[in-house]
Amino acid sequence: MITGKNYIGNIHSSLGENVLKAYNPTDGSIFSEEFSVATSEEVNAAIEKADEAFSVYKTISYEQRATFLEAIADEIMELGDALLERASGESGLPNGRFQGERGRTCNQLKMFAAVLRDGSWLNVNIDTAIPDRAPIPKQDLRKMNIPIGPVAVFGASNFPLAFSTAGGDTASALAAGNPVIVKGHEAHLGTNEMVTQAILKAAEKTGMPDGVFSMVNGGIPVAQQVVSHPKVKAVGFTGSLGGGRAIFDLANQRPEPIPVYAEMGSTNPCFLMADKLASDPTGLGANFANSVALGVGQFCTSPGLLIGVKSDALDQFVDTLGKTLAEASAATMLNEKIAKSYYEHRGALIEQIGVVSIGESDNPGESKGKPLTAKVDGSTFLANTKLHQEIFGPFTLVVECNSADQMVEVAKSLEGQLTGTLVADESDIIANPEVANALSEKVGRILFNGVPTGVEVCHSMQHGGPYPASTDAKTTSVGTAAIDRFVRPISYQSWPDSLLPAPLKNGNPLGIWRVVNGESTKEAI
Amino acid sequence: MITGKNYIGNIHSSLGENVLKAYNPTDGSIFSEEFSVATSEEVNAAIEKADEAFSVYKTISYEQRATFLEAIADEIMELGDALLERASGESGLPNGRFQGERGRTCNQLKMFAAVLRDGSWLNVNIDTAIPDRAPIPKQDLRKMNIPIGPVAVFGASNFPLAFSTAGGDTASALAAGNPVIVKGHEAHLGTNEMVTQAILKAAEKTGMPDGVFSMVNGGIPVAQQVVSHPKVKAVGFTGSLGGGRAIFDLANQRPEPIPVYAEMGSTNPCFLMADKLASDPTGLGANFANSVALGVGQFCTSPGLLIGVKSDALDQFVDTLGKTLAEASAATMLNEKIAKSYYEHRGALIEQIGVVSIGESDNPGESKGKPLTAKVDGSTFLANTKLHQEIFGPFTLVVECNSADQMVEVAKSLEGQLTGTLVADESDIIANPEVANALSEKVGRILFNGVPTGVEVCHSMQHGGPYPASTDAKTTSVGTAAIDRFVRPISYQSWPDSLLPAPLKNGNPLGIWRVVNGESTKEAI
Repeated sequence: MITGKNYIGNIHSSLGENVLKAYNPTDGSIFSEEFSVATSEEVNAAIEKADEAFSVYKTISYEQRATFLEAIADEIMELGDALLERASGESGLPNGRFQGERGRTCNQLKMFAAVLRDGSWLNVNIDTAIPDRAPIPKQDLRKMNIPIGPVAVFGASNFPLAFSTAGGDTASALAAGNPVIVKGHEAHLGTNEMVTQAILKAAEKTGMPDGVFSMVNGGIPVAQQVVSHPKVKAVGFTGSLGGGRAIFDLANQRPEPIPVYAEMGSTNPCFLMADKLASDPTGLGANFANSVALGVGQFCTSPGLLIGVKSDALDQFVDTLGKTLAEASAATMLNEKIAKSYYEHRGALIEQIGVVSIGESDNPGESKGKPLTAKVDGSTFLANTKLHQEIFGPFTLVVECNSADQMVEVAKSLEGQLTGTLVADESDIIANPEVANALSEKVGRILFNGVPTGVEVCHSMQHGGPYPASTDAKTTSVGTAAIDRFVRPISYQSWPDSLLPAPLKNGNPLGIWRVVNGESTKEAI
Repeated sequence: MITGKNYIGNIHSSLGENVLKAYNPTDGSIFSEEFSVATSEEVNAAIEKADEAFSVYKTISYEQRATFLEAIADEIMELGDALLERASGESGLPNGRFQGERGRTCNQLKMFAAVLRDGSWLNVNIDTAIPDRAPIPKQDLRKMNIPIGPVAVFGASNFPLAFSTAGGDTASALAAGNPVIVKGHEAHLGTNEMVTQAILKAAEKTGMPDGVFSMVNGGIPVAQQVVSHPKVKAVGFTGSLGGGRAIFDLANQRPEPIPVYAEMGSTNPCFLMADKLASDPTGLGANFANSVALGVGQFCTSPGLLIGVKSDALDQFVDTLGKTLAEASAATMLNEKIAKSYYEHRGALIEQIGVVSIGESDNPGESKGKPLTAKVDGSTFLANTKLHQEIFGPFTLVVECNSADQMVEVAKSLEGQLTGTLVADESDIIANPEVANALSEKVGRILFNGVPTGVEVCHSMQHGGPYPASTDAKTTSVGTAAIDRFVRPISYQSWPDSLLPAPLKNGNPLGIWRVVNGESTKEAI
């Protein structure tokens, strides 16, 4: 079933001599298949094909596009347990985790099918003509969103299904009417090919044009070629700050710059407010330990900073947090490189002056991540931005402030974040409104209690935040609004009704919500 | 009244030794005032003050912000004829033109006041909790737009009122809740200071925080400092491709990149379709001559490319166009530099092989722009991208295609455009749908007949387009949607109603349109 080929639309291709191999982090073994690194010609062919497919795909009805997305979900389910096993084998994450992640992936595809039928994503705005307006007549103007062209997608290692080949970026780009070129993630090459086959089967069954989806394997040179190609019109990326920024820079240096939607993680600061903390320090300590250790800390929303004011309650919280994490066993991380990076960055942080490690946590080897927490006082944290960086893995840093005012200073000192959490009673927010106020300027999502891990896929989700959490704080990579990244508005001026696209016609044949002369309505004009 | 100072919020400042002088392009005279070039300290002070003002300004009610915008309009009117005279004196544009432009400027400010009261710009989306959902409860999530922080605005020389100091960028950034720092345009220094005074008077009268608006004078170094400052969070720019791209590059190379919304003009291609052209070639020729010569061709929507298929009707069209333009008298351009650039670029284009100038048009000197048209065949146009560039001024190039198919090729060969026009009967679009289809991929606004000059300020306007027309094709610099550039969404998760911002509260106290669990409504929850 796994061929190791590149998929230039429906053509399976392996022209190059270089190959990649898939790796099993749990036992260090290498999978047998050889994955062909795409040649420059193959990459160009995939993009040219996407560009040709665009002229057809953009004209396909929203209903047909929705059917295509649903068919992808069906074909992914058709892959059965083999997909879960391969994903587990390539990522070190347990098989059961992929039951859930597969469900999320399929639900995302179905959600965008529903978005297509709902029509709100078209953002239709109509201002009708006023021919007798003085001094000049008002023209009829009608605006709607349209697709932008081929989109390149770079998936994440920590979500081999939900944020990769058929993940949120691919689903939203396809929903918007754009062909997609995926560069297969090197950390789950087999999973990627299996999902690629599912997408192409769905495309064939639902009559989509050849080239609506392509997949090429390779490393940085392939990524650079894809991002630099003049016919690629946007990029979706989930991964590290280094990788995201490199792609962002390359895309902006093109003769025609293109948008890069990179979600690059964050430290997800949690502010432990006095009243709430005092009410249950040990319970909160245990809760946060679980959130830190969840998925071996390999979530972009993993709580990496816990900020409180020096107090007995904070001591109890830290004590429970430290003990619970110390008792947690080491678990296999996504790959050797990530495990190595975890211990290196964690070690470098703990070596900073004033940082005290809570308990012991050696590197057990075999790509296993062992949880750990450490503590530092607020003044030291404020003075050393090395302590503000994300450590990808099951580590969290407790910042012990000398006052509520210092918590505000800490909030103000932070870089952009995907999330920020107030662990608080209402009385805490009323007593110290400036913490929440300062935090709201830094984050895409602000929680009142709970833990930041767990990102609901819905209309109201904002998964993105000021740089370096993402490269475009106005957009989200999770939820229905993710489709907005891959469209642009166009205004039709003074067109006859018969020639207008369906969403703009007087009769509102699609029956969608539209803003007509400033008022939301589903009525015809 | 004109002091030549920089305005660091309410402080008038002239610490530097360098000065700029204002210039009258009509008679070449120099205005008497000396405008102080802001020092590095003054620029920093303005931005620091904006950052401090932000913490207050963002908390001010939408109603109060609306009152501020309306007060700016009132104060601009209070400047009376002196403003119109100064703007005319500094730009060479007739006084009467500024009656209209002032009205547009004030209407834009009032429109954004209405936008603030309407509340749709907040884009409120609420998904209520489902506590008993299996396997995990659904959290309450509520999303709304919030301001982003200090915005830098660089105005345009061709609209000293409507796209400058208190123009669309400033109005939309202030409406969104962001302080604004304007770098005064060197081509209308006095007009800029007068409008600055109006804005600051309005701020004082309506109780806005000091620093909500600042204005600094200077050249490229001042611009670079403003764009590079870490506390500036976005840039609005209207002007040339060279200037816009330089600012875009600088902003993207920052440690924390920021969005640049640059509107950089275009050639605004108009496709003369066979049936329509044959019905009235001379009338159309006269119409387009007027559009080309309007405002001495100094509009970003001036029709710079006219594309038709070789025919008697096209010959008649070109004949009328050429004659009408030849009869139009030369008029003063915005400044010496623009006039010089017009003749240089026009000359370089006409010297290209295969380009035939229609009629004579010498440079009369005195910064006066004389209209002209020229002709080239489709194959030559397709082979030479130098012919695709915008010539800022009253010039248009007629492209004579050998077939309807070649028109499609021309449409496909174009760069991104603000507008594209089909001069067509319905029968033309039905006979040759590919022209409109190809054109729609290149433009922000697509017209069915009419001329592209004249940009309606309304909900459905898209004034922006694929690069190089703008740096962000998803946004517009004209119309209510311009406010979207200066906000970002934030999601509130599981917050108690009492602590939520007003737009998100269950009771909908602002009475605005919201999407609740996927349905548009003004109802309370």
